[in-house]
Amino acid sequence: MPEAFVTLATNVGYCMGSLVVGKCLRRYGTTRKLVVMVSPNISAATRLSLEDVFDEVVVVDVLDSRDRAHLLCLGRPDLGITFTKLHCWTLTQYSKCVFLDADTLVLGNVDELFEREELSAAPDAGWPDCFNSGVFVFVPSLATHTQLLEQAHLHGSFDGGDQGLLNSFFSDWAIKDISKHLPFIYNLSANMLYTYLPAFCKYGHQAKIVHFLGKTKPWHLGYNQQPTSGLPSWNSNRNLQRYVNLWWAEYYSQTQKLSEQPSEHPSELRDSAPIQHVPVQEDAGACLSAVPAPLQLQQGRSVSPLRMTPPPQSLEMDSKVQGEDAQTGSPSLGEGTLSESPASSCQQPQEVLSESEKVTASDSDDSDWFGDPGCRHWPGGWSHRNGARQ
Amino acid sequence: MPEAFVTLATNVGYCMGSLVVGKCLRRYGTTRKLVVMVSPNISAATRLSLEDVFDEVVVVDVLDSRDRAHLLCLGRPDLGITFTKLHCWTLTQYSKCVFLDADTLVLGNVDELFEREELSAAPDAGWPDCFNSGVFVFVPSLATHTQLLEQAHLHGSFDGGDQGLLNSFFSDWAIKDISKHLPFIYNLSANMLYTYLPAFCKYGHQAKIVHFLGKTKPWHLGYNQQPTSGLPSWNSNRNLQRYVNLWWAEYYSQTQKLSEQPSEHPSELRDSAPIQHVPVQEDAGACLSAVPAPLQLQQGRSVSPLRMTPPPQSLEMDSKVQGEDAQTGSPSLGEGTLSESPASSCQQPQEVLSESEKVTASDSDDSDWFGDPGCRHWPGGWSHRNGARQ
Repeated sequence: MPEAFVTLATNVGYCMGSLVVGKCLRRYGTTRKLVVMVSPNISAATRLSLEDVFDEVVVVDVLDSRDRAHLLCLGRPDLGITFTKLHCWTLTQYSKCVFLDADTLVLGNVDELFEREELSAAPDAGWPDCFNSGVFVFVPSLATHTQLLEQAHLHGSFDGGDQGLLNSFFSDWAIKDISKHLPFIYNLSANMLYTYLPAFCKYGHQAKIVHFLGKTKPWHLGYNQQPTSGLPSWNSNRNLQRYVNLWWAEYYSQTQKLSEQPSEHPSELRDSAPIQHVPVQEDAGACLSAVPAPLQLQQGRSVSPLRMTPPPQSLEMDSKVQGEDAQTGSPSLGEGTLSESPASSCQQPQEVLSESEKVTASDSDDSDWFGDPGCRHWPGGWSHRNGARQ
Repeated sequence: MPEAFVTLATNVGYCMGSLVVGKCLRRYGTTRKLVVMVSPNISAATRLSLEDVFDEVVVVDVLDSRDRAHLLCLGRPDLGITFTKLHCWTLTQYSKCVFLDADTLVLGNVDELFEREELSAAPDAGWPDCFNSGVFVFVPSLATHTQLLEQAHLHGSFDGGDQGLLNSFFSDWAIKDISKHLPFIYNLSANMLYTYLPAFCKYGHQAKIVHFLGKTKPWHLGYNQQPTSGLPSWNSNRNLQRYVNLWWAEYYSQTQKLSEQPSEHPSELRDSAPIQHVPVQEDAGACLSAVPAPLQLQQGRSVSPLRMTPPPQSLEMDSKVQGEDAQTGSPSLGEGTLSESPASSCQQPQEVLSESEKVTASDSDDSDWFGDPGCRHWPGGWSHRNGARQ
């Protein structure tokens, strides 16, 4: 039986996110199947768009914990719906799967995750004896699915969402088998980077999957957009903005399938506002080298222009329209290029988008990067090591 | 050979902290030796005070990484001096040791830590594939000590402090042996609690060691004092304030040794300002039940009054006087009681200080506590389970 990456979308924002998850996985040459589960409220047009990227679009019923008390304790009343994630165990046409939340950004080939057993996951930075349920390896099984639903019914979830339930179910994760601890670089909390900045400076360049935790997602933000009041403080952080920029670059990039068959995006994903290239502020104290450089078109290389249109400027979906399919604008893919000149002398991004959308870059010497006291030296280029260009 | 708990003090604030570490360990009946390493700047009077609690006070040279760049990246220019911690490997008169930072608060008997091997430690919440070096199990060895110094000399530390160095030295901690992962409850980051509040609500009552990370320490704050501008936001958090209160209660409590031989505290630890019993604000959204209740004298029980004097109100030592021995006031132990009425209906603290300073409490039923949707129900009492009163 085949193996598959699985993600989930229950509203338009998460559809955008799942599209990016799928496109990234294809970009980095996964050999596994791609599956997206969608709730019934997702329109046929959006499903069609998802089918451009995913091998299978599975409509699943919405499961909501309706556990308002615990969800308020978590500060995320919208997360009850994540019980819907439990349906992934019913995908028994696959022998093993890797679940990726639709608010993750895959930065390289991560097929090696299939070498892990159920239930493998990375620690949650908030309480590291719990795993974060945004990325995990599992084995579809109707028996497990039934047991999970029974546990949900009998005991609920200590956080009102899937993560509390799954941690209670796979309760020996913290103490039993180190091989089931995925490295943190497979589920790097984008809004936690500055809690221990030196570690991010040392290990951040190895990141393979970034997770945009919290209420505000990349699809709420714009490419290179300055933060505005009401947005989380991490948006003012240049590293995180660059992750957001990478997300947008991927969102507007073409997949192989899309390049063969350009399709009209569903109306939900449209927006006609012009892209804002706001000058990036210098951030002397930040670790500027641990985030891959924004995708850039280089002179002297044969590349096709990156087809893109401006990102939505003020999408406010997510929790507000949880379970609904907001109509947000026009998405026809126009012609354009996405580039950014390095604002800091320690950045020398040399990424390109090749015709097949496979990122290439000049060779870099990590030794230049390691041991740099201020961790602000940008190496020859972001090389997406560890199989990222397989 | 005996085993020992080890801590370190390089200024007066950390001397206060180490005193609390030692007193807590004695309160909860450790069978191990207690050792405090102090830098040469610590006065003879303070060392004498420490000898009331510790079996051994060892003067060690100060080792400073002088790695300003990485320390600035960490935001803690004062932490270079933590290289001094490496001296703990020279304590070869002990077969195995547990190191506790002087800014930790021990909430129960933790002798079971000696069942672990070198190097066992709990994950750092900021980057959970690194361990936090505030609590760790190690085996004294001059060979290891030499290797650590060589590594420090050749490669430095990625964060400029001991934690970066130790993580690079014991670099397989994250991937090799799950038994070397101490549960997070043995090094609970006091200023990270609200990152994943439901987990704190579920597991926080099991906490055995709380770690006051960050620049502001309990000795900078007062008992039940309201936060003022410039203090970290976590001081406004009731749970954390209660940990701070527990710290102060322990600081002013008597150890068995002290009760036999009351001693004049050194002048560095003196302060004559009156204690402020500011009414605690109600915090409807907080998880009020996961922190042990403030120590309280109950009517109808035979208890001795808690000997105490007011805490310092505005100590500003730490990084400002790093390496110095600030003179801060008068510490003579006056008579007084420390109590707090429950401000919330869901709190029913029933702790007492018995004559021997052993905390007792009414039996509680954890089942009352678990599964409480708002995690705000205070059980019958904080029972210090898991051997806390052994």
